[in-house]
Amino acid sequence: MNKPSIVVLGAGYGGIMTTIKLQKIIGDNEADITLVNKHDYHYQTTWLHENAAGTLHHDRTRIPIKDVVDFNRVNFVQDTVESIDPDNKKVVLEDGELTYDYLVIGLGFESATFGIEGLKEHAFSINNINSARLIRDHIEYNFAQYNNEEGDRQDLVTIVVGGAGFTGIEFVGEVVNRVPELCQEYDVDPSKVRVINVEAGPTALAGFDEELVEYAMNRLEEKGVEFRLGTMLKKCTEDGIIVEKDDEQEEIKTKNIVWAAGVRGNSIVEESGFEVSRGRVPVRDDLRTPDYDDVFVAGDCAVLFNKETDKPYPPTAQIAMQMADTIGHNLKQLINGGEEFESFTPDIKGTVASLGHTDAIGVVFDDKKLYGRSASIMKKVIDNRYLVKLGGVGLLLKKGKLDMYR
Amino acid sequence: MNKPSIVVLGAGYGGIMTTIKLQKIIGDNEADITLVNKHDYHYQTTWLHENAAGTLHHDRTRIPIKDVVDFNRVNFVQDTVESIDPDNKKVVLEDGELTYDYLVIGLGFESATFGIEGLKEHAFSINNINSARLIRDHIEYNFAQYNNEEGDRQDLVTIVVGGAGFTGIEFVGEVVNRVPELCQEYDVDPSKVRVINVEAGPTALAGFDEELVEYAMNRLEEKGVEFRLGTMLKKCTEDGIIVEKDDEQEEIKTKNIVWAAGVRGNSIVEESGFEVSRGRVPVRDDLRTPDYDDVFVAGDCAVLFNKETDKPYPPTAQIAMQMADTIGHNLKQLINGGEEFESFTPDIKGTVASLGHTDAIGVVFDDKKLYGRSASIMKKVIDNRYLVKLGGVGLLLKKGKLDMYR
Repeated sequence: MNKPSIVVLGAGYGGIMTTIKLQKIIGDNEADITLVNKHDYHYQTTWLHENAAGTLHHDRTRIPIKDVVDFNRVNFVQDTVESIDPDNKKVVLEDGELTYDYLVIGLGFESATFGIEGLKEHAFSINNINSARLIRDHIEYNFAQYNNEEGDRQDLVTIVVGGAGFTGIEFVGEVVNRVPELCQEYDVDPSKVRVINVEAGPTALAGFDEELVEYAMNRLEEKGVEFRLGTMLKKCTEDGIIVEKDDEQEEIKTKNIVWAAGVRGNSIVEESGFEVSRGRVPVRDDLRTPDYDDVFVAGDCAVLFNKETDKPYPPTAQIAMQMADTIGHNLKQLINGGEEFESFTPDIKGTVASLGHTDAIGVVFDDKKLYGRSASIMKKVIDNRYLVKLGGVGLLLKKGKLDMYR
Repeated sequence: MNKPSIVVLGAGYGGIMTTIKLQKIIGDNEADITLVNKHDYHYQTTWLHENAAGTLHHDRTRIPIKDVVDFNRVNFVQDTVESIDPDNKKVVLEDGELTYDYLVIGLGFESATFGIEGLKEHAFSINNINSARLIRDHIEYNFAQYNNEEGDRQDLVTIVVGGAGFTGIEFVGEVVNRVPELCQEYDVDPSKVRVINVEAGPTALAGFDEELVEYAMNRLEEKGVEFRLGTMLKKCTEDGIIVEKDDEQEEIKTKNIVWAAGVRGNSIVEESGFEVSRGRVPVRDDLRTPDYDDVFVAGDCAVLFNKETDKPYPPTAQIAMQMADTIGHNLKQLINGGEEFESFTPDIKGTVASLGHTDAIGVVFDDKKLYGRSASIMKKVIDNRYLVKLGGVGLLLKKGKLDMYR
C-alpha cells in the first residue's frame, strides 16, 4: 500500500507552521511528509530589520529546523527549489527532483523593484538572513571607511531607506537607534550622519490609523530621521539616489541604500505557470490554487481578498500562520477522502509596528490604539506567542524577547 | 623672561614617552612643552594587527592622551602636521602654525609600497587605528557577501598578506585564529577560506633564529596558513594579485589584500628637507639631526646603525621608548646650557613575535629562546610593562593583557 506524499516547499511562517500542524494531525501511516528548504534553519522575517540595523544578532532570529520539526516524522530536504511542474506533480530542485501527491507552496516573498533604474545593482533589501547581515556589514564598512577617506565623505554615513511601509518604518526606527553606537565604534561625529526615508505616497504607514502615524513620524523625526513623503525614487547610482517631488529632481549622495518599498511573491511560482497577480496566487477559499486541486499556497505567495473592503489582505506573518492551520485541516480531509473543507478567514488580532527598542505603535482588538512602551510590550508578546506555537516553551526561553523593558 | 618652548610632534611611542619624560624632569619655569597629535589618543602600534584581524577591539589598543599626559604641564594641540621649517623654527599644521625653540619629531612610519602596481589602490595596510579597523570590517564585509553572491566566490574569503616580517607573521597568526569565528558568524564553510602569506625573501622573519622561525611556520601552517616564500608580489588588481616565482607568474584571486612588507619614515620629514634614508633621519649619537642642533628625532623617523654589525637597528617600540629617555635628558641639558649629553645606545632586552592567542616565539636576554605559551606570556609581560611605564598601575588595570592564558 502506497502512502500519499505531501511536499511542503519553504520553511517560512507558512511552510513551517503547515509542517508542524501536519506532523501533529497526520498519522505516520496516513502520509509521508517532506519539507524542502534552502537552509537548515527557519527565520523570523519580522525580525530581519533588526538584524539589518545591527541591533539584534541574526542568530536570535533563526531557529534550526531540527529543533521544531520532528525528523522522524518529516523528511527534510535541504535544497533550493528551481521550478514546479504541477501537471506532472514534480518539483525540480538544484540537486534533484521530487514528486508529490499534494503540494504546499510556501516560498515567500522577494523584493519588487518596479523597474527603478539601478535599484537592483545599488540597493539592498531586507529579504533573508544573508541579505540582512550584509546590510549590517555594509553600513558598518562605510562607517569604517569614513575616517580613511580624504575630505568630508558624508555620503558614507548617509543611510537612505526607500519606502515608509511597515518594513521601512521599522528599519529606520532600529537604524536611528543604532547610529550612536556606530558613531562611537567608528569615531564618527553624529552630526555627520543622516537617516532619510523616501516614500512615494503622501503618508507613512498607509492605511494605519492617522493618529498613530503622526505619533510614529514625530518620534522618529525627534531621533533624527528625515522623511521625504510624496517623493519618488527615480534612480539609484554608484553615488546615491535621484528623487523627484513636484517635478523637481534632487540628488542625495549616499553609499547606503535600503529598499523596503515593495514585495511580491517568489517569482518561481509565476515562472512555473501558476496564475498570479504581482507574483501571488489568488487562492480559493480553501487555499488551493484556482487550477490544481492538489496544490495549496501559504503565506506571501498567496493573495486573498477581504470581501468587505475588496482589498487584498496584507502579506503578514499572522495571516501566513493562520493559513497553515487551514491547509493542515484541508490536507487531512483530502488524504482521507473527507469533504469537510475549511474556508480560510483571517482573524486579524492586531497590528503593531516597532519604532525601535521600547517604542512602537499598534492597533489591537479592532480599535484599541497602543503607543510607546505598551505597544512595544504588545509586540514582544506577539513574537513570544509565535515562538511558543512554533517550538514550545523551550524555544521561547531560547529565542524569546523576554526583557520587556529593552 | 621668556621660557624656551619645546614642541613634540606625534604621540606614538617615541613622542608620548618623550613628553612624559619631559613633564617629569623639566620644571614648570624651565620650559613650555607642547605636544601635537592628529588624534586625542595614543595607540599601541604593536597591537594593531590584532585590531585588524578582529581578535582585539581597537579601544583596548588606544589610550586617551589626557589619561597619561598632564595637561596642566603640557599644552596639547590636536592637529595634523603638514610640514616643518627647521631654518625658521616653525611647524605648519592643518589649522595653524607653531614656532619652537626645540623640536622633537616623532611622526612615526608609513607603508613603503616599493612602486608595486596597484598596491596603493587595492591593498590595505596596518598603519593606525582607522586603517586597522577598516581591515577588520573589510574582511567581515567580504565574508558577509559570500552567501549573497552567485557561484562559489572563494576570492571573497581568501586573505592574502604581503610580507612575512614581524607584522605580516603576527597578523596571519591572528587572522587564522579568527577564521573559525568568521565562518560561524557568516555561515561560510571553513574549507573555502584561504590565508596566504607572500614573501619575497627566502625565509619568514628574516634575521630571527632559524629554529624559532621553523617552529613559527610549522605552527601557522598547521592552522592553515599557506606560505609562498621567495615569491614577489608583482601587481595588485581589483580581482587579486599577480605573484612571480622563478620567472613564473600566477594570479591569486582575492578581495582581501593586506600589505605588511615594509615601512619607511613619515614622508613629511623628507619633504621638509631633512636628510633621510628610506624616509628616516640618520641621527647623531645624541639623537639630533645631522644639521640642526635644536631638532631631535624619536622612533620610526630616525635611523641608527649598530656599530658592531653596521646594520640599522629595527624600528621597534622598544627602541623608540629608549630614545625618549635620551632625548629627555639631552633636552634638559640644552635648556640649562649643560654639556653632559648622553649618547643613545639601544638595550635590546628581547624580541617576541606573537603567533596568535597563546602562541609566540621569542629571544630574550641575548640568547634565550622561548616557544609557545612561555613566549606568549613574555610578550604580554612586555606589553604590560610598557603600560605601567606610560600610565602607571591604573592604566595597566584598564588596558593590560592580564589574562596570561588567553
